[in-house]
Amino acid sequence: MRELSPVLVIGAGLVGASVAQALTRAGLRVHLQDRVPSHAQVAASRGAGTVDPPVAEKVRLVVVAVPPKALPKVIAEALTTYPKATVTDVGSVKGTVLAQLRSTELDLSRYVGSHPMAGSQRVGPLTATADLFVDRTWVVTPHDTSSAHAVLDVGEVADLCGARKVSMGAAHHDEAVAQVSHLPHLVSVLVAERLTEVPPEHLRLAGQGLRDVTRIAGSDPQLWSQIIEANGTAVLAELIALRTNLDALIAELDTESGVLATLERGREGTRALPGKHGLSAVEFAHVVVEIPDAPGALGRLFRDIEAAGVNIEDLRIEHDLDRERGWLSVQVAPERADDLTAVMTDSGWTVRDRDPQL
Amino acid sequence: MRELSPVLVIGAGLVGASVAQALTRAGLRVHLQDRVPSHAQVAASRGAGTVDPPVAEKVRLVVVAVPPKALPKVIAEALTTYPKATVTDVGSVKGTVLAQLRSTELDLSRYVGSHPMAGSQRVGPLTATADLFVDRTWVVTPHDTSSAHAVLDVGEVADLCGARKVSMGAAHHDEAVAQVSHLPHLVSVLVAERLTEVPPEHLRLAGQGLRDVTRIAGSDPQLWSQIIEANGTAVLAELIALRTNLDALIAELDTESGVLATLERGREGTRALPGKHGLSAVEFAHVVVEIPDAPGALGRLFRDIEAAGVNIEDLRIEHDLDRERGWLSVQVAPERADDLTAVMTDSGWTVRDRDPQL
Repeated sequence: MRELSPVLVIGAGLVGASVAQALTRAGLRVHLQDRVPSHAQVAASRGAGTVDPPVAEKVRLVVVAVPPKALPKVIAEALTTYPKATVTDVGSVKGTVLAQLRSTELDLSRYVGSHPMAGSQRVGPLTATADLFVDRTWVVTPHDTSSAHAVLDVGEVADLCGARKVSMGAAHHDEAVAQVSHLPHLVSVLVAERLTEVPPEHLRLAGQGLRDVTRIAGSDPQLWSQIIEANGTAVLAELIALRTNLDALIAELDTESGVLATLERGREGTRALPGKHGLSAVEFAHVVVEIPDAPGALGRLFRDIEAAGVNIEDLRIEHDLDRERGWLSVQVAPERADDLTAVMTDSGWTVRDRDPQL
Repeated sequence: MRELSPVLVIGAGLVGASVAQALTRAGLRVHLQDRVPSHAQVAASRGAGTVDPPVAEKVRLVVVAVPPKALPKVIAEALTTYPKATVTDVGSVKGTVLAQLRSTELDLSRYVGSHPMAGSQRVGPLTATADLFVDRTWVVTPHDTSSAHAVLDVGEVADLCGARKVSMGAAHHDEAVAQVSHLPHLVSVLVAERLTEVPPEHLRLAGQGLRDVTRIAGSDPQLWSQIIEANGTAVLAELIALRTNLDALIAELDTESGVLATLERGREGTRALPGKHGLSAVEFAHVVVEIPDAPGALGRLFRDIEAAGVNIEDLRIEHDLDRERGWLSVQVAPERADDLTAVMTDSGWTVRDRDPQL
């Protein structure tokens, strides 16, 4: 194992405090700093390290976990203040940070960016956990002048956090996240934005599809506006590509074959997305069981599902709009659906053989 | 109860066969027809009625459940062939059907459209169930010359199927579903379509957000191209409104305040959407527990959750991309999250206090 102690984590929000907890658990000595001292104290009280200041000359690793706009300045200060340390950050956008660092006179050989692909709608050190990154993708973004030593150090951080490392250049990373994260986020926002102009009674006709499309639009606007701004170039390219496709769809709207071709390309796209266990998504059968909305009901329900010996591939709870009632939609292998339905019916449950979607 | 027997259901797919099952269960005599006779036979064998032809003069109700493009012709034929019957259909779009019927010489007083808001990614009579519409919204769309008798008949069908009736004019309905269903569907398709142009290695960086946004893009392109074509005018208006908002977003992309305002309107839109039990969505705490991907594991897990006495508001299963492992994300009231975490940890489960999103 590489010698990374002592570590300094700057920024004790969800991601910073979680990295600090994971590194502390791995046996490293971790110091915590936050612009709001109480954040660092809360994180320290939850096993993320100490708020005692480190001896600057001794720090071997600095993890910068501050909001996107503050990254370049804090990284630059860290490179200066901690002359022996490898410095990394955990920001969602890498290119603009690197460009701003390059515009300084600093030697950047000790800097290597990274982006752990985990987060939460929640923020702050109280929500942190040493397990936040386990089995998540952690992108390491070395640049042209990153030293081997620094790259290996940052890879070790990802390993100690239990993540899966992927190495990419900054611009490559930013294009990829614009495609798979930032564009979908903005599109979700655009659909949700339209709902503010829709009469409330129309929303009675909304189904699960609309809920799914708009869910991520509920995330923190402050954080996301900084992410979008920092990745402006790649996001702009994606939005323009989307507009081109939208214009094409509008133009072909009166030709059924054109709409059909678009819908077919869309379905093809969903199949390109890795499903569970890295395989393509499989179509499972849905068995929908009515559940009382009370403690213990799901426990009894799953005991009976267990009696059926059927492997549950996925599940979802649906709720009735007006009544205190819910359904559990259980996805199972198609050939096991009848068995499960029979066992559940025999056990006195109301099984509704329908899909939660639409 | 109104006298609706004998009923004729034309089209024995998921929706038609489900209506037929529900009406048969309610004690009505139901006759089934399908362009593919074996579909009607399968539906009949599953309790949806009989394939014996009805006596035309005696039929009191015809439910037309054929694909969107075939609706006007089949409805018109039904009005002619069954001179005493109230005729309804279950299509997703109402205005174009009505306009085409008006262009005939037919007396339309016996026709009232309807749209039960339930469906499935699956198709065909084997997936039908008498419970498909229970507690779902069922839109009844009377027109200017619909007789009171016919309107009351169609309302009775919705009641017998256990649905919640909503009455709207055809154009009003079509605008509403363009907003809450067709636009979100096409936007999901546009995002999914982009994925076909994205290098597969970028998709490794995809999170739950992208999966949610693109899920409905996996639906049947044939069916949806007919729906979109039939509602072309309202869908076009929505797409143009979306393009206006997209253009505004592109224009303001280099101003953080503009992006922030859009993100805030998006979050406001998600809050306008009714949550469970008709209330606004509440932010729940997430408790994430590792589960072995094997029969019975969830049963044991829920027994232990039951021991905690904590009401489960919602849940979701996440799967690891590479390993045969999953997590159950349990949403509970924020003040109960610590209790649940403590009980689960005491019971030997690995609790990961993180959100499944991002």
